[in-house]
Amino acid sequence: MSEVGAAAGSKKTPEKDAILPQKDLTHLFKAKSVAIVGASANPDKIGHQILRNLIEGGFEGDIYPINPKEKTILEKDAYPSVTDVPNFIDLVVISVNANFVMPVLKECVEKGVKHVIVITSGFSEVGNAREEQEIKDIADQFNISLVGPNTLGVVYPPNKMNTSFGPRDVILGKIAFISQSGALAIALMGWTKMEKIGLAALVSVGNKCDIGEEELISYFNEDENVDVITIYMEGIKDGRKFMQTAIKKPVVVLKVGRSQRGARAAASHTGSLAGSDQIYNAAFKQLGVLRAQSFTEAFGWARCLSLPAPDGNDTIIITNGGGIGVRTTDECVAAGIKLFDDPDWLEEKFRETMPSFGCTKNPVDITGQAPADAYQKATRIALEEDRIKAVLVLYCETVITNPLKIARSIAGEYKKSGSKKPLLVAMVGGERTREALHYLNHENIPAFDSISEVVDGLKVLYKWQEYKERKLDKPDIKPPPQEVLDIINNAKKEGKKILLEHEARKILELCGVTTPKWGYARNLEEALEIAKGMYPFAMKIVSPEIVHKTDVGGVVLNVRNEEGLKLRYNTMINHIKEVMPAAKIEGVNLIQMVKGIECIVGLSRDPQFGPAVMFGLGGVFVEVMKDVAFRIVPFGKVEATRLIHDVKGNKILDGFRGIVANKPSIIQSLLAIQRLAPYVQECDINPLISNEFGSFAVDARIILE
Amino acid sequence: MSEVGAAAGSKKTPEKDAILPQKDLTHLFKAKSVAIVGASANPDKIGHQILRNLIEGGFEGDIYPINPKEKTILEKDAYPSVTDVPNFIDLVVISVNANFVMPVLKECVEKGVKHVIVITSGFSEVGNAREEQEIKDIADQFNISLVGPNTLGVVYPPNKMNTSFGPRDVILGKIAFISQSGALAIALMGWTKMEKIGLAALVSVGNKCDIGEEELISYFNEDENVDVITIYMEGIKDGRKFMQTAIKKPVVVLKVGRSQRGARAAASHTGSLAGSDQIYNAAFKQLGVLRAQSFTEAFGWARCLSLPAPDGNDTIIITNGGGIGVRTTDECVAAGIKLFDDPDWLEEKFRETMPSFGCTKNPVDITGQAPADAYQKATRIALEEDRIKAVLVLYCETVITNPLKIARSIAGEYKKSGSKKPLLVAMVGGERTREALHYLNHENIPAFDSISEVVDGLKVLYKWQEYKERKLDKPDIKPPPQEVLDIINNAKKEGKKILLEHEARKILELCGVTTPKWGYARNLEEALEIAKGMYPFAMKIVSPEIVHKTDVGGVVLNVRNEEGLKLRYNTMINHIKEVMPAAKIEGVNLIQMVKGIECIVGLSRDPQFGPAVMFGLGGVFVEVMKDVAFRIVPFGKVEATRLIHDVKGNKILDGFRGIVANKPSIIQSLLAIQRLAPYVQECDINPLISNEFGSFAVDARIILE
Repeated sequence: MSEVGAAAGSKKTPEKDAILPQKDLTHLFKAKSVAIVGASANPDKIGHQILRNLIEGGFEGDIYPINPKEKTILEKDAYPSVTDVPNFIDLVVISVNANFVMPVLKECVEKGVKHVIVITSGFSEVGNAREEQEIKDIADQFNISLVGPNTLGVVYPPNKMNTSFGPRDVILGKIAFISQSGALAIALMGWTKMEKIGLAALVSVGNKCDIGEEELISYFNEDENVDVITIYMEGIKDGRKFMQTAIKKPVVVLKVGRSQRGARAAASHTGSLAGSDQIYNAAFKQLGVLRAQSFTEAFGWARCLSLPAPDGNDTIIITNGGGIGVRTTDECVAAGIKLFDDPDWLEEKFRETMPSFGCTKNPVDITGQAPADAYQKATRIALEEDRIKAVLVLYCETVITNPLKIARSIAGEYKKSGSKKPLLVAMVGGERTREALHYLNHENIPAFDSISEVVDGLKVLYKWQEYKERKLDKPDIKPPPQEVLDIINNAKKEGKKILLEHEARKILELCGVTTPKWGYARNLEEALEIAKGMYPFAMKIVSPEIVHKTDVGGVVLNVRNEEGLKLRYNTMINHIKEVMPAAKIEGVNLIQMVKGIECIVGLSRDPQFGPAVMFGLGGVFVEVMKDVAFRIVPFGKVEATRLIHDVKGNKILDGFRGIVANKPSIIQSLLAIQRLAPYVQECDINPLISNEFGSFAVDARIILE
Repeated sequence: MSEVGAAAGSKKTPEKDAILPQKDLTHLFKAKSVAIVGASANPDKIGHQILRNLIEGGFEGDIYPINPKEKTILEKDAYPSVTDVPNFIDLVVISVNANFVMPVLKECVEKGVKHVIVITSGFSEVGNAREEQEIKDIADQFNISLVGPNTLGVVYPPNKMNTSFGPRDVILGKIAFISQSGALAIALMGWTKMEKIGLAALVSVGNKCDIGEEELISYFNEDENVDVITIYMEGIKDGRKFMQTAIKKPVVVLKVGRSQRGARAAASHTGSLAGSDQIYNAAFKQLGVLRAQSFTEAFGWARCLSLPAPDGNDTIIITNGGGIGVRTTDECVAAGIKLFDDPDWLEEKFRETMPSFGCTKNPVDITGQAPADAYQKATRIALEEDRIKAVLVLYCETVITNPLKIARSIAGEYKKSGSKKPLLVAMVGGERTREALHYLNHENIPAFDSISEVVDGLKVLYKWQEYKERKLDKPDIKPPPQEVLDIINNAKKEGKKILLEHEARKILELCGVTTPKWGYARNLEEALEIAKGMYPFAMKIVSPEIVHKTDVGGVVLNVRNEEGLKLRYNTMINHIKEVMPAAKIEGVNLIQMVKGIECIVGLSRDPQFGPAVMFGLGGVFVEVMKDVAFRIVPFGKVEATRLIHDVKGNKILDGFRGIVANKPSIIQSLLAIQRLAPYVQECDINPLISNEFGSFAVDARIILE
């Protein structure tokens, strides 16, 4: 993060902003020895369930139940305290009453333990933030990686390690799942098992007093057992820290609390702070994180994201049913997925895979009679052709064909091909079809019972490809020139909260935002002088007492000549003297009228993510359609371009009724305004008028801290 | 359909437009005797499979295999021909080669059969439209209801009648399913059985040469065994006939071929004609049909639509997990579903259903420990409270609770309540949860494994409620006055295809569309006279040779005074004489300049649905955002209001930068333009400028047939 972004944070002290060295998480997952404090012989106790899951899950390292009253539990030797264990302990799981957690943690410190999971609840989620902070302080002081408190535990199938009190079995796979809800984690463990979705890790992060999403993503980035990371999130602790996370593998986030009411419900559930959902959206996009809308979508995407990404745009659809072929075509078109098109080649290659009434056009309809070997042939042709970059295979259950055999032949062909391009399957039918779907998912071929999901899965692969290939945007936001700081400091000394309009425009100019020709005149004589060569222009009153200039007749538009200037100047001054005799009139601003496309650019602060820049098109777009988008400061040219593109009406910039906007100068404005982030509370350029010659800050408002 | 709509159709002859008396379908479904022509002893033959399905499905009526070579098939006496059967036959199923279909149909006529299903394929779907028409003619001549050709058959579980060659078993329920794809129907039969979704009927309509969606909806409207109708549709045969269908029960349509490419694929699949997808959307809305986007959505909706509709807006969420509670809240807010809010009452009533750390706010979180009886209590409280209009119950699988027991207690409570309000369930988890979901669906309580689906299900119930309660719109579109027809006929006589601008504006005025003050002047003197009291105005050249007036300087705006008029009139005429010496100049139109919100109103013809009216906001909305909506002619005030509301930017009409549109006069224009439907090919009012005083057709273009 650049200097600007760092200095621009919320009210935190600089010490807190310093980034602690990344804690090592290796033995949180690849522990060779685990102690369970609170292990119990009573099967109703969580401490018993965890121990049993660990043992029966097949953990091959050392297991130490810690219980002062028992000699052995589940045939394992028990110890009164972790300090009594004769060997080194990689990981301690604490499941005791809340008031015993701190003493146990201190014993862990004494024992030199570096990884701790605190299962126990009763901390910040019930308002007890003080004790949670004490735990966090100890963890930081002794460089302990601490998961929790208030967690279900950690499950890491590659190490056969289940320290949770959830279900014992999950299927080994390549997806790491991070959940802020323990209850949901339990339910989804069962669901993934049923759907044959494999997991590489499950971390219930609980209150996230120490280890949160950021640390886990960083660890999984380097973990060879993980291909994709999915996150269920109710809120982020520190948005700016989150923005520093490197995204090296696909990350799919389900962030709930989109609506205000939902955010309130989340707050009462885990005490998460609610940030604006639009800002979360911006942050995810900027970071390259994929945002899903539901559990099934998140895991559907995750399954697909373990496939090789398509290295081009031509997709083929192989189907045994016309109806689902049409459905899939519709969805592909809606998703912007291009279908491969070479009718002659398709006819030549695919004709032999189908009866005479089949259709070789893409979607390739091998007909309802198609048996496994027709699927096999068609799949092979599609996989072998270099021009085809992605393959969608569809099956509609029939009475005379065998879905499992068909699934086997598709999977076999895909494996034989060396899997260099993505292949996804959708199958519609009853129990036999479900069995086939499970088989495919077990074989790591993403298979769905719905057309929407299979196309969505391919779409997200393209999206991830785009994120990966996106040029790395190195924001280089320089501090503003000294003159800007001088203006701001002077204004502060004078007790101003809002800068005068010409001060604001001056500051923006100094930062690199173009403005129309303008001038500040203290009287009519100065105005007549400045006005030369500037007609037509707008004239606005300057007075610290007048905030809403229009309301008192302090704004006139389209002053076209000297005669008009004299007349309208006098009218304005006289009128204001009459209606606001107390206002000190300092003069007028003259601003040349500019024609072009109205935009709006803003800088504000989010409680979670700090300074953020907004862009929108002016007029109906912002006022009626609320069509605006955001990025977190700092960002460079690439993100500025994407920000403009995020606005739905962006096409208007390419030309409307003969006027074309100047995108480079809009981008320039989006970069320039960031220079003010550490020094002002808010800045609005409204409108920024863009035309072929540039983009001009016609009106601006700056609010100081 | 009013006279106007009827006369406005496509090129069909009046005879075809006349509506034939509705054929009776009762014994297509409630047949007491069924003959199968082409019944075979060979298990590979379709005729064998149908016979077996009919027998083994438990059909209790008489079954007559028709086969000239066999004495008995599957222990049933066989007959050489339907005419040889000694008794009356309600329904004949034909499964013989295409060239034998016509002779068999003639035997059916001879026998007096009134219901026929033609399984055989090889007709219009392979280009053989002539023979299909012959079949249709016979059916009409002898008042036979004919399903097919090219169909899977008809299944009607209330009569234990399965005349399909698909799976034998489906679950008896209340949903009628009409499918244009036989393959899909087979696959979905298996899927509904697996998901415990009950069907009242399945009709594979095939090529729809006689019986189509319209006849089936009309029949199911009155069938006590049917609550909801779902349709898989690739294309409609006759849009105007479809628009006459009365929708008395919820109809859910999955119409594929949304995209151009998808429509092309559909065309090569069933030979369906592709209409514009926007027009289909308009038609469905206007008729009150619910349009789903996927199979699962269609059947998910259908399950929910068999519930009583909520009679108000207050929904309660009962959950055992905070995370899914938040997700559901988000989805409800996004769907516009209001959550019940009375914190004191909630606390008083629900506190006893949960441990101390539960949350009585809505979503009511009875916590992960909640056993079946906590669910039962909470459900009962919600069902008993009159102010609560809909109930969503959520369950997240835990290790210590039993999902099936919980499902049973919810279902029991719901039945006991007499089911006067909708209750829907979502459960997330593994196999045990799946079993619970199946139980609930079997008990006709819509239960889903996803939050999105359950909220969507409730949303569609509200939507259907809105459709039902919508005021019946009786379009009363009168023919235009004789003067309009005279103008049109004169223009036609002169060989004009496009009317002159002042002719178009005159016609619209006569039909009831307001125009700005305007006048037609043949020379400057007339122009000066007309201009009095009309400044500022626009002036446009009138010449049959000049189509693109702006290109030749034939349009000037903002003529402000006499001086300006003289100068600009002469400049215009001289310039045109120079650049287009051949053009016969007939004069100029003067049109007063009007300020207001730009709209666009259009009338055009769709190949499927005939005349349709478009509405949009002008400027960026139509040119950049393509934000327009349609309705099929004829429609009245209610639909005109809904049409305006369908446009995304409609809020702008309520006021933008001080200008408010005049909705009643926009509606008036939308009704008035319909009067032209039978007489013109196209009519565009662009712009229609709306302000507080009215809506004015500033420019108009009319294209004749």
